[in-house]
Amino acid sequence: MPARKGRLDPTELDGVEARNRIESGALSAEDLARACTGLIGAHEEPVHAWAYVDASDVIEQARAMDSFRKSGRPLGSLHGLPVAVSDLVDVRRMPAGRGNVLDAANRVANDAWVVSRLRAAGAIVAGKAATSECGVPVAARTRNPHDSERSAGAAAAGCAAAVALRVTPLAVAADPGGSLIQSASYCGVTGYRPTFGTAPRTGTLQTAPSVSTVGAIARTVPDVALLGDVISGYDPGDPDTQACPGPRLLDIATAVPPVVPHVALLKALPGIDTYDDCAEGFGELSHVLGSHCDEIDLPPIFAEAVGACEQVVQAELAASLRHYAERAADVLDEATREFIERGRRVSAPDYLAAKNWREILYTGLCEIFDRYDAIVVPAAPGEAPLHDKFIDPTRFNAIWTLTGVPSVTLPLLQGARGLPVGVQVVGRRYFDGRLLRTARWLANLVAGVPDTTFESAQRGI
Amino acid sequence: MPARKGRLDPTELDGVEARNRIESGALSAEDLARACTGLIGAHEEPVHAWAYVDASDVIEQARAMDSFRKSGRPLGSLHGLPVAVSDLVDVRRMPAGRGNVLDAANRVANDAWVVSRLRAAGAIVAGKAATSECGVPVAARTRNPHDSERSAGAAAAGCAAAVALRVTPLAVAADPGGSLIQSASYCGVTGYRPTFGTAPRTGTLQTAPSVSTVGAIARTVPDVALLGDVISGYDPGDPDTQACPGPRLLDIATAVPPVVPHVALLKALPGIDTYDDCAEGFGELSHVLGSHCDEIDLPPIFAEAVGACEQVVQAELAASLRHYAERAADVLDEATREFIERGRRVSAPDYLAAKNWREILYTGLCEIFDRYDAIVVPAAPGEAPLHDKFIDPTRFNAIWTLTGVPSVTLPLLQGARGLPVGVQVVGRRYFDGRLLRTARWLANLVAGVPDTTFESAQRGI
Repeated sequence: MPARKGRLDPTELDGVEARNRIESGALSAEDLARACTGLIGAHEEPVHAWAYVDASDVIEQARAMDSFRKSGRPLGSLHGLPVAVSDLVDVRRMPAGRGNVLDAANRVANDAWVVSRLRAAGAIVAGKAATSECGVPVAARTRNPHDSERSAGAAAAGCAAAVALRVTPLAVAADPGGSLIQSASYCGVTGYRPTFGTAPRTGTLQTAPSVSTVGAIARTVPDVALLGDVISGYDPGDPDTQACPGPRLLDIATAVPPVVPHVALLKALPGIDTYDDCAEGFGELSHVLGSHCDEIDLPPIFAEAVGACEQVVQAELAASLRHYAERAADVLDEATREFIERGRRVSAPDYLAAKNWREILYTGLCEIFDRYDAIVVPAAPGEAPLHDKFIDPTRFNAIWTLTGVPSVTLPLLQGARGLPVGVQVVGRRYFDGRLLRTARWLANLVAGVPDTTFESAQRGI
Repeated sequence: MPARKGRLDPTELDGVEARNRIESGALSAEDLARACTGLIGAHEEPVHAWAYVDASDVIEQARAMDSFRKSGRPLGSLHGLPVAVSDLVDVRRMPAGRGNVLDAANRVANDAWVVSRLRAAGAIVAGKAATSECGVPVAARTRNPHDSERSAGAAAAGCAAAVALRVTPLAVAADPGGSLIQSASYCGVTGYRPTFGTAPRTGTLQTAPSVSTVGAIARTVPDVALLGDVISGYDPGDPDTQACPGPRLLDIATAVPPVVPHVALLKALPGIDTYDDCAEGFGELSHVLGSHCDEIDLPPIFAEAVGACEQVVQAELAASLRHYAERAADVLDEATREFIERGRRVSAPDYLAAKNWREILYTGLCEIFDRYDAIVVPAAPGEAPLHDKFIDPTRFNAIWTLTGVPSVTLPLLQGARGLPVGVQVVGRRYFDGRLLRTARWLANLVAGVPDTTFESAQRGI
């Protein structure tokens, strides 16, 4: 769009486009950094997206990236892009406050695994995005960027808010129970929660090891794929990761689907209430998808996931945060203390029985994935609630969190108040690239954007 | 020994020797089977080594093995050897009673993984050896073959008694918390508990998945190595096993050690009482070993293993046996019910904290294994106690069970009553062959058997 070039606001570019312009020299990393950090002041109060951010440091890193580019050496896939990093994830020389008072003065010497990968890819670590206390599924202090009376979610609230406000095109979030999907839905951005065990968690606060996941938040599907490629990999320090080739998410996500996808539409979940406006939105979605979808129901046995996932998350958080609770329980929020207390009351045999549901329910999901490209389901029960009426995301996302399947939420719907509601697309474990491709197809279909490459491929048949 | 050939009692042969004679035709599998099964009647009352055994079936299998040999086809490594299989391990067409009333009528259609390996190696499945109720660390009904007033242990009691009585040269045992080592010590035989994750547990009663191990009982170190080679391997059905080459235990265990071993002697364990006669025996052992050993103590932190291992075993058993306890708790023994009840009282965060000790303590053990070939330590606090004074083996073997290291118990000592006391040799994870080689060297040294191959190798230096 050369006609608009003079008036270009670089914060409006998505990550892939900004990265390409920086590589070609059409945009400098410094200009992008100045534009992004320029948005902090306008919105940080009352949103509180950041636990730590230093605009001058961001601009300085950007200048170094511009110098590097001029040296003519090959550039990383995130060269010059500012990335928000969850405060649960360690960044060298930045505070590691993890949303709690006890860690307020804590600085760490080493980057988390995913942060070292960000740096290797040329990203600019913009700062630490605010999170809930110790990452527990309780309300973060972050307010919704669309309505500051409302919640932005829990562990991933700051990441989703920073991306929604265009302060960074990309954010690396971490959550123990589906907060990433919830926050992205509330804030109207795209969230990608990879297959469990894809993104190593070394250097992130150990919350609930059986379900905790590091993932990507951005405004578009190609952008979460771009970031997903960087944060995926094998790390012997995280026993849940596997030595396998990189997922090539961006290549696959932006490719033409070989056949038109066919998805399973799930308007409601067993044992979970959905708000009216969400149900209405899904009715319209069903109409738009037409013959590309079948409406299905999950068997009632899937309601077991809700209690099982809660027990796993509560028990593991109580174990992980034991030293916080024992050292100084009185400085923790009441909601956090209650959460830990609930975890303490889970018995070990109940916990072990809850973990057994993981593979049982995944076997059931696979029967759906044998027939459909993806499951399409609400990302949250509805619009963001009032800040003091926070809803724990563990229950609503229990099936996907517990079984460790990859999911993407797309900001496709609006609620009765005009606030965003996410449409979640869920796939088979380790088929993240195909899931992102299906999600991109869905987003284009709903937006009415003709997927020209796809259309022409169809015509060729 | 051709002069004794006419009077040879084939049950006196160790497994390796019997197998070689069967291969050469000097002994028929049928003669061995008849001699072995002939011992059942004399001792089964009052010992109760067997949950199920059918002498005519054993002899019939042996005849088939003899016919197979005459066909000239290559023979498996256990060709014609009768093997006792723990009643916790499934054997096709045999009762799977698992030591409890609820399973009394249970027959299974498939062999456990280790049993299919036994058959492939040409072994004769002699029957199901008695175990404690559901394998829980409570007294089995089996009495000690050396003194029927005394205990033969818990889950592995029948296996150890059958081998001690020479009814079979080999036995496959399964335990959740070190019962294999305890029973072998009480009954005066050799027990080999492999590195955790070496022998697949598919088809054995799930007891405590984090520590439960399938292992070998026999009269000599080469015999447990012979059997260990057969039951080790990779099984996708047991996620704790790994795809790796076979351990070649027999080759390594019977090879000449490249240098004279140097072991760490541990007379007592932090937080555990040892009986006087055991302490005295270890004093003599220290004298015999002389410069080949250093007496060491473990730091007090290792006492944490006791409570941690108990919590893991109790909690996992309570989860695994939940359906037994819920269906018909009233038909379970009081000791079993109490055990399950203790497991139910373990909280999930305590259980998770207990599991964390596994790698912490193993790191500490590795510092010892960096300096010594093995740790030598009592296999039990002393001689077998009276049958109604049973001692849970979980506490005494907690360090080795929790950390998943391989161990071998050797019947080298006698207590004040003349009953056997085992000397346990413990090694580094996955160095099972080397551990067995060191154990064989120690057994020969204590027995005063000159290891001629070793001596001549030494002279060559």
